[in-house]
Amino acid sequence: MASTFGNRIKVSIFGQSHSKGIGVSLDNIPAGMVLDEEKLGAFLERRAPGRDENMTQRKEEDKPEFLSGFMEDEQGRLVTCGAPISAIIRNNDAKSEDYEELKDIPRPGHADFTAHIKYGGFEDYRSGGHLSGRLTAPLCVAGGIALQVLEQLGIRVSAEIDEIGGQKIESREQADALIEEVKDEGDSLGGIIKCTVSGMYAGVGDPIFDGVENRISQAVFGIPAVKGIEFGAGFAAASMKGSENNDPFVIDGEGNVRTETNNSGGILGGITSGGDITLRVAFKPTPSIAKEQKSISYSKGESENLVVKGRHDPCIVPRAVPVVEAAVAIAILDMVL
Amino acid sequence: MASTFGNRIKVSIFGQSHSKGIGVSLDNIPAGMVLDEEKLGAFLERRAPGRDENMTQRKEEDKPEFLSGFMEDEQGRLVTCGAPISAIIRNNDAKSEDYEELKDIPRPGHADFTAHIKYGGFEDYRSGGHLSGRLTAPLCVAGGIALQVLEQLGIRVSAEIDEIGGQKIESREQADALIEEVKDEGDSLGGIIKCTVSGMYAGVGDPIFDGVENRISQAVFGIPAVKGIEFGAGFAAASMKGSENNDPFVIDGEGNVRTETNNSGGILGGITSGGDITLRVAFKPTPSIAKEQKSISYSKGESENLVVKGRHDPCIVPRAVPVVEAAVAIAILDMVL
Amino acid sequence: MASTFGNRIKVSIFGQSHSKGIGVSLDNIPAGMVLDEEKLGAFLERRAPGRDENMTQRKEEDKPEFLSGFMEDEQGRLVTCGAPISAIIRNNDAKSEDYEELKDIPRPGHADFTAHIKYGGFEDYRSGGHLSGRLTAPLCVAGGIALQVLEQLGIRVSAEIDEIGGQKIESREQADALIEEVKDEGDSLGGIIKCTVSGMYAGVGDPIFDGVENRISQAVFGIPAVKGIEFGAGFAAASMKGSENNDPFVIDGEGNVRTETNNSGGILGGITSGGDITLRVAFKPTPSIAKEQKSISYSKGESENLVVKGRHDPCIVPRAVPVVEAAVAIAILDMVL
Amino acid sequence: MASTFGNRIKVSIFGQSHSKGIGVSLDNIPAGMVLDEEKLGAFLERRAPGRDENMTQRKEEDKPEFLSGFMEDEQGRLVTCGAPISAIIRNNDAKSEDYEELKDIPRPGHADFTAHIKYGGFEDYRSGGHLSGRLTAPLCVAGGIALQVLEQLGIRVSAEIDEIGGQKIESREQADALIEEVKDEGDSLGGIIKCTVSGMYAGVGDPIFDGVENRISQAVFGIPAVKGIEFGAGFAAASMKGSENNDPFVIDGEGNVRTETNNSGGILGGITSGGDITLRVAFKPTPSIAKEQKSISYSKGESENLVVKGRHDPCIVPRAVPVVEAAVAIAILDMVL
Repeated sequence: MASTFGNRIKVSIFGQSHSKGIGVSLDNIPAGMVLDEEKLGAFLERRAPGRDENMTQRKEEDKPEFLSGFMEDEQGRLVTCGAPISAIIRNNDAKSEDYEELKDIPRPGHADFTAHIKYGGFEDYRSGGHLSGRLTAPLCVAGGIALQVLEQLGIRVSAEIDEIGGQKIESREQADALIEEVKDEGDSLGGIIKCTVSGMYAGVGDPIFDGVENRISQAVFGIPAVKGIEFGAGFAAASMKGSENNDPFVIDGEGNVRTETNNSGGILGGITSGGDITLRVAFKPTPSIAKEQKSISYSKGESENLVVKGRHDPCIVPRAVPVVEAAVAIAILDMVL
Repeated sequence: MASTFGNRIKVSIFGQSHSKGIGVSLDNIPAGMVLDEEKLGAFLERRAPGRDENMTQRKEEDKPEFLSGFMEDEQGRLVTCGAPISAIIRNNDAKSEDYEELKDIPRPGHADFTAHIKYGGFEDYRSGGHLSGRLTAPLCVAGGIALQVLEQLGIRVSAEIDEIGGQKIESREQADALIEEVKDEGDSLGGIIKCTVSGMYAGVGDPIFDGVENRISQAVFGIPAVKGIEFGAGFAAASMKGSENNDPFVIDGEGNVRTETNNSGGILGGITSGGDITLRVAFKPTPSIAKEQKSISYSKGESENLVVKGRHDPCIVPRAVPVVEAAVAIAILDMVL
Repeated sequence: MASTFGNRIKVSIFGQSHSKGIGVSLDNIPAGMVLDEEKLGAFLERRAPGRDENMTQRKEEDKPEFLSGFMEDEQGRLVTCGAPISAIIRNNDAKSEDYEELKDIPRPGHADFTAHIKYGGFEDYRSGGHLSGRLTAPLCVAGGIALQVLEQLGIRVSAEIDEIGGQKIESREQADALIEEVKDEGDSLGGIIKCTVSGMYAGVGDPIFDGVENRISQAVFGIPAVKGIEFGAGFAAASMKGSENNDPFVIDGEGNVRTETNNSGGILGGITSGGDITLRVAFKPTPSIAKEQKSISYSKGESENLVVKGRHDPCIVPRAVPVVEAAVAIAILDMVL
Repeated sequence: MASTFGNRIKVSIFGQSHSKGIGVSLDNIPAGMVLDEEKLGAFLERRAPGRDENMTQRKEEDKPEFLSGFMEDEQGRLVTCGAPISAIIRNNDAKSEDYEELKDIPRPGHADFTAHIKYGGFEDYRSGGHLSGRLTAPLCVAGGIALQVLEQLGIRVSAEIDEIGGQKIESREQADALIEEVKDEGDSLGGIIKCTVSGMYAGVGDPIFDGVENRISQAVFGIPAVKGIEFGAGFAAASMKGSENNDPFVIDGEGNVRTETNNSGGILGGITSGGDITLRVAFKPTPSIAKEQKSISYSKGESENLVVKGRHDPCIVPRAVPVVEAAVAIAILDMVL
């Protein structure tokens, strides 16, 4: 019932887009793990705003300050000590004045209205408050650490853009061109990210409500703008016959049981088969667009058009790639520890 | 980490396909609710096997016996008393001899192999054990009760077949014809079920990891054979522009804020908007098919073909419709209590 | 928020004293464990009513029927298969007519009144309903299994009577004499049970809210009539000086770090030290006594004296000994798995 | 399995005694609550070190910085906005050099050894790391907020010193004199704190494992040095007869059902009766004493005497009074929301 995830690990995300800071507490990470700070920095950089001319212009350093959870070893490296890891990020470049209007007029496609109802008018209306995409920064801090722990277990999580605006994406240039185009229209695009977990061993995941699909979904729908998820052949499997969709078992060169195909996405009965976990995640287009939109005024109780101000990505899919990796990594780590 | 669901309510499902019995414990249902047993029976009947010539031939009475959680009122009706509700169903028509072969040869597309690894060879290999579709019977008992509680709150959950084998379904006859055909081939079909939650009020759901999509997904992936889920426009939203996908806010005749369209599926930022919650669930084709399939023998360590015996639905989608309602109802009830 | 316990295992207890049955679901017990049914039976027998002339006269067979969670091996032994274990016990000897009066007049010292308020008058008022000591039967089924799993890990939990009615107990005869005496007075006695967990290895338990004391307390207060718990020197430590209470560290013959004394009860900072865990549990006297007591009538809104009918233990402490073992075993197992 | 508490609220505590900072995330506090910062400051001041000549000499400002969870209203007051509240406190006055010796020689009565085993030698050995009493500062931030929410519901939690070193305490002077004396000896004292929750309404708490005693215990054992807890008559009830211990029901002047006595501590069957909740908590003496103590050296594998350096309270009981209030308030709030 909260911004908290995990059965074995505990991820607690806090902060609002325009509060003093945002952050995360991450508990139950094994002691003795050396954090590669440079690698974490590079991972966070992939999500960071303002790195690209098509991307949101808010410039945040976004370097997490770790308050706890580590000891320094003799080389000055951070080593987990078994205590909860906590990291905070200051919100320095927040321009709250851009959002005064949103106090009264909710942005279509955003959580402004639903938060207004849920929190009885006390919500932080500035740029989505706690429900802002900015909260994916602490999610990525936790996920970046999870990725490093998983790597030490031989498990790799990697995501990439699959589609933008309905088009299969082969290159970053192609993606950029599509985004450039829609930006010029004052509009936005959604897309699909696919993700693969390799090196996954068999037998992970629990029956019924705590299977791999259940757990990954719970984490991935924690990313704003996600509206669908599928594993393996996913929705396409619904059009297949059993004889096509079933993955035959074979014994590989090393004497291990493998499946010849991987329509199951590496998951049978909620439990990993030893094959790669594969999934695809659907993102809706960024709701903040430059075009005028129909909304309502709470105070006037009538319709009122809105032009959303501020800096917004015309397509968040490129920056969401590491966020998907982060969410999936957290879910996987929670099951393998 | 278990066959348990819920933050506010607690659903615990137990049993194996061929154990003495299966059942469910359902805790935190409000006291004072009158159970309509006839309605529950009719609901369970929709899922029950052996009701149709195309459906699995296993005949089970499948009437739950309630051991606790109710008091009888003066008219002999069952009224919840605040104690955990428990219901058991005996497994009477289990033919375990059909499954001896599966001890050594896992069925493709089933959880036989993954359970074998997870439980170190001690798994109940008879018809999927705890990972069998049969466990959707106690899920439907819990879900049927949840549906009745929700109805008293003015909330209705209803699902229907959307597609079978890639074809849009307009009538039960059409569905039956498709299934008949594939049955004759000794093969099976998957499909898509769509579900609508109406009467839902705004402000339900929690941020980030406990949003409505996260919670419904965690429940729905508890249904065997589900490989994908989407809310509102879902995967189609990934091909839309923001100006198309955003649902404009309007004020309806009664002065309430509504959205003009419902691409969001009634959920913004994980929180309900007051519109209908809409979702679609992808089912893979039944993995048990009459055709010979490639598998392996654990004992021989080599390939071995398998013909799955026993009684199987060539398409579980029709019987899965109430199961989707049950899973969604449980998730919704867990959020509104 | 429920009759459910466990982070790693999941114990769900259901049933009411006079419902059709009571039972338990126990999830996440490792697969491959052989259940010694005879040993479990002997354990349950220690708690069973009607075994002794001083004890409650309700005669229940109280043999659990296992519906799931096991496979039979070739010798007919029950072996865990990884699926949730479920066990039910029928309530055969329930005489509900004894309790009709309690519908209107709550018994002092019992949960009749508090359940009445909590469940808005819909509570099962017959002999405490779900809040009856009878629910310790399924707790002992779960606990008896937990004890067997722990034993395979070299961990033993054993409890004994420490005091009854304020007197140190050296023998069963002494206890029986005290109870006999109070029974003749139409009154009842409480007492203290001490419990030791031996073979416990160091490093178990989590910081702050999930330490060994926190977890054992959460389980042990699940036993009706428990009003206090202490670990190691407990309340007596509050009167000691640091130099007396601190347990000096020493290295034993095998080169292991041990403490010379064990005032800490084997727990430092919530984490086991490798010494025996020791604890004492205070039980209030059985609230059901033969003497007339002051109570009130809900319907009349005025005072009304009550003589509690039915069969009651004048002291539940002897039968509570295995229940303490069960609760502690569940808590320990939840931490070591 | 973590430094996390709560079913309805979520308290996550992080930090180590000598890490950069400590803090807490507190989720699910209702939106719209005005925080009285002055009152919170006064509450935290009661726990703060260095305020008294008998108390630990570490001087920390210990003023929490709130990063999120609030909006400022027009008067500049902090109002909860429904987002997780997060607060951090910097560790400014940490003298880590005092603790280098403890890397190799664990302090008797502390968690140094048990953390060493649990975290495989990677533990933060500086002053107890995450298992330090310093972590009660963020616990008090969360508890101080919980107290304010409870107060708005008419519920008050107040604790006081009951005993120090085995002596009943009537005045602060008496307590100070006892502590002064033991300080001069280079030793330390424990004590007992009693706590009362008034204004509690009936019907709060859940059966079996989530009763009021279970939940309060889980929170209170989160305070370092607590070794026992009892409710109402507690251990004394074990020496009483049923006729003495049972609290007779009466109807008070306003027509409400009350108990004439309160041996139950306001809790029957784990559920509140409407009477005051009363409890007593036993604290062991501060393990850090000036006297030389027997310990061992990990590196040498042999006995080694230790004189604990640094600044330590000879009795933590006076400073623990608000900490007990904080822990109890968190547990109560988790049950009433």
